[in-house]
Amino acid sequence: MNAALNPDRSEWDVIVIGGGPPGEVAAQYATQFSGLDAVIVERELLGGECSFWACMPSKGLLRPIELVSNARNLRGVTGASIDVAGVLARRDEIVKHHDDGSQVNWAVGAGIDVIRGHGRLAGEKTVTVTGADGSTRTLTARHAVVLAAGTRANIPPIEGLRDAAPWTSRDATNLQSVPRRVVVVGGGVVACEAATWLHGLGTEELTLIEGGPRLLGRTEPFAGEILAERFAAAGITVRTGTKVTAVSRGTAGGEVTVTLDDGSVVVADEILVAAGRTPNSDDLGLDSVGLAPHGYVTVDDRLTVPGVDWLYVVGDLNGRALLTHMGKYQGRVVGEVIASRAAGTPLDGYRYRDRATVPQVTFTDPEIGSAGLTEAQARDAGLDVETAEYDLAALAGTYLLRDDYVGRAKLVIDGDTLVGATFVGTGIAELVHSATVAIVGKVPIADLWHAVPSYPTVSEVWLRLLETLEQQRRGK
Amino acid sequence: MNAALNPDRSEWDVIVIGGGPPGEVAAQYATQFSGLDAVIVERELLGGECSFWACMPSKGLLRPIELVSNARNLRGVTGASIDVAGVLARRDEIVKHHDDGSQVNWAVGAGIDVIRGHGRLAGEKTVTVTGADGSTRTLTARHAVVLAAGTRANIPPIEGLRDAAPWTSRDATNLQSVPRRVVVVGGGVVACEAATWLHGLGTEELTLIEGGPRLLGRTEPFAGEILAERFAAAGITVRTGTKVTAVSRGTAGGEVTVTLDDGSVVVADEILVAAGRTPNSDDLGLDSVGLAPHGYVTVDDRLTVPGVDWLYVVGDLNGRALLTHMGKYQGRVVGEVIASRAAGTPLDGYRYRDRATVPQVTFTDPEIGSAGLTEAQARDAGLDVETAEYDLAALAGTYLLRDDYVGRAKLVIDGDTLVGATFVGTGIAELVHSATVAIVGKVPIADLWHAVPSYPTVSEVWLRLLETLEQQRRGK
Repeated sequence: MNAALNPDRSEWDVIVIGGGPPGEVAAQYATQFSGLDAVIVERELLGGECSFWACMPSKGLLRPIELVSNARNLRGVTGASIDVAGVLARRDEIVKHHDDGSQVNWAVGAGIDVIRGHGRLAGEKTVTVTGADGSTRTLTARHAVVLAAGTRANIPPIEGLRDAAPWTSRDATNLQSVPRRVVVVGGGVVACEAATWLHGLGTEELTLIEGGPRLLGRTEPFAGEILAERFAAAGITVRTGTKVTAVSRGTAGGEVTVTLDDGSVVVADEILVAAGRTPNSDDLGLDSVGLAPHGYVTVDDRLTVPGVDWLYVVGDLNGRALLTHMGKYQGRVVGEVIASRAAGTPLDGYRYRDRATVPQVTFTDPEIGSAGLTEAQARDAGLDVETAEYDLAALAGTYLLRDDYVGRAKLVIDGDTLVGATFVGTGIAELVHSATVAIVGKVPIADLWHAVPSYPTVSEVWLRLLETLEQQRRGK
Repeated sequence: MNAALNPDRSEWDVIVIGGGPPGEVAAQYATQFSGLDAVIVERELLGGECSFWACMPSKGLLRPIELVSNARNLRGVTGASIDVAGVLARRDEIVKHHDDGSQVNWAVGAGIDVIRGHGRLAGEKTVTVTGADGSTRTLTARHAVVLAAGTRANIPPIEGLRDAAPWTSRDATNLQSVPRRVVVVGGGVVACEAATWLHGLGTEELTLIEGGPRLLGRTEPFAGEILAERFAAAGITVRTGTKVTAVSRGTAGGEVTVTLDDGSVVVADEILVAAGRTPNSDDLGLDSVGLAPHGYVTVDDRLTVPGVDWLYVVGDLNGRALLTHMGKYQGRVVGEVIASRAAGTPLDGYRYRDRATVPQVTFTDPEIGSAGLTEAQARDAGLDVETAEYDLAALAGTYLLRDDYVGRAKLVIDGDTLVGATFVGTGIAELVHSATVAIVGKVPIADLWHAVPSYPTVSEVWLRLLETLEQQRRGK
């Protein structure tokens, strides 16, 4: 525990357990205009998974690789190459050498206290904190406790896997040298991004093992298909519909042998497990308030635990959308809800909106971005949707970006409004927000017709998609 | 004239004079679902200024320079450099070596005829075409004539300028070798983009002469200021508040001497005039239908000439917004209006919306993008607006993009709706469309609060801008 940070105090208006971005934002929004005070209890680093072991280092590793890929595929640019030591050194700067001092300074500057230690619920509005030295202290919340304890990498129960010292996402983002051979277990976002940077940094033999039928199973099918083609062209082996049945590493630091369900064997230097997440609900004291000490913690659209009106959950732990930006959004909602309830003012629009608006960008090469629902998700939700698709490579704006441009876009439309959009291609990361605004704002298709994209940009795909829709509607 | 393209026919439903993108799109939209037929009369190349002398070659020259700039300013990437011959060869491919065959094929495939020659109005619904060989033919329109003759570079009446064989934008985009010393007359979009590629390709002494107080005078002031700082850091001389009083070039191919209004002299190898545009209205036969044969041709929001209900004007020639994408948008509106009027169906939403939504991206380094009104334009329009600004370099998403990130963003808000947005920085080109959608869709600020940007992207600036606005409103 940091002695400078209120060692003797025991009561705050708001106690937040977990200082990743969702917890930080919840504390900020609960206090910034309300006069309430707050403390964040953090057992590792303030800034959390995102800042030190996930989004920030992964995007930091991927950005140089993206630039070199673009440069090598554009006539007129020569000589671009990756300096591996430089990339890793920059990554170390991005994660601030695992020093959270600047985050603590931010909190202190915002009037938010920080206590280091493992926080657990201990009955109504009560939290105990166990420090690294085993000392404990008990805190009381006047108004609210916010759980923001996140998730950790899931290690599936595969024979020999735990004993083989597998890498998780934390090891992959914080790698210090580049293994020559890697097997990646999984085919989702973490697996695909890690494969991209490992390949870009020099891993020579890379195999992805995905149990489902394709990569990125929750996106529109063409996204995973385009990425699989790019991976294959880069010499990365993708095995879909395949499961790992056993893993063994003879000696520590030696090679690892991975056996697949078809009996084949892959030998590698490291095995990266990117097979989903496990909520950190098993050591949070949830049973002290009558909740199950496992699984995701259910909340309503005020991010409040039903029946426990002082308890809130934000970020991965509520299982609604395991994405930093959605956790931060939940933090904003919760902060305003707590402040409004404390002041007795209306909660107004401070309600977590349906997950049907969630945006996501996967920083592979090409990038994959989406907002709202896929066609399959929309149909599962009972919507009788239309779709429009367009080859992104057919635009002037993409032809200019790189010589071998590959991409595709798709809109999912319910009557007069957009409910989903997916973009695959170089330069689409910032394009996603136009779809998010259209979906959240329920902008009618007839108005989108007047939203002119600049020429020549990738955004011009909006024109083509709306033209395609119109042609379909007019039966041409 | 192309003998293969209806040499003997004289009547069409729609005649379009000028085959740049606005004219092409007008012909496409007038015919695609209506059963009407159309002919485009083009005196140069089908595809127009944009395809061969403006947007396409300029962005083609700028993209490699953008990539190298980003690569050189990102630790972890080494060796990226410009291959000038490669850039110019790629530019030649982009402009298809000035062969418009693929555009003609597009038109023919769309059922649109093409006649090569200079088209002029010759009375009601009548157009004469003069071919390169001096031959003439007369065409009659059953329904509509669309003027899409565009603009040309304005050469200001400066002593000695015309005799000095100045470059215009066409020479700058189609340069075959890189002059060592260039003076640019002007400080608008063309001047700033050309300075960026000339510097990137190796021009050593570059001087911009702008009569007004700053670069990019029609954007938010910080845009031109940031760009001027970057230019200065790159060794480019920017002289604002300065006018050229005389130009002389002693011998053809020799150096050019440029005298400024403070008496100083700049010597260069070429002088590029980027001082606005002149409408091509002076040789269009406008007087044959009672219109003035000079200046921009006024239209209403159906892009129709008042009092001449069969005559339409799209693109630069109507002076509404001299941007390819706005001209194409006008082409879509006009095509639907013509088809609807011919069919006797309602014109519905086919109305050119107020210019207050116009987006624009300037592909300098950093990029400059905007949609809607600047603060000054909004106040001039009588709106009592609020603004919110944010330093783009303070975002996680920009910190990751390049080591020396510089940028800024600003929203202009009228009550509960956005009326303008400006973004300056690397990677903002595709971000502009989110603002365009918000402005055109009149998405309330309270809804934008729920439009979550993905982490870590540049789009996260939306969050910061909305937070800044909220802090201002709550008096913090």
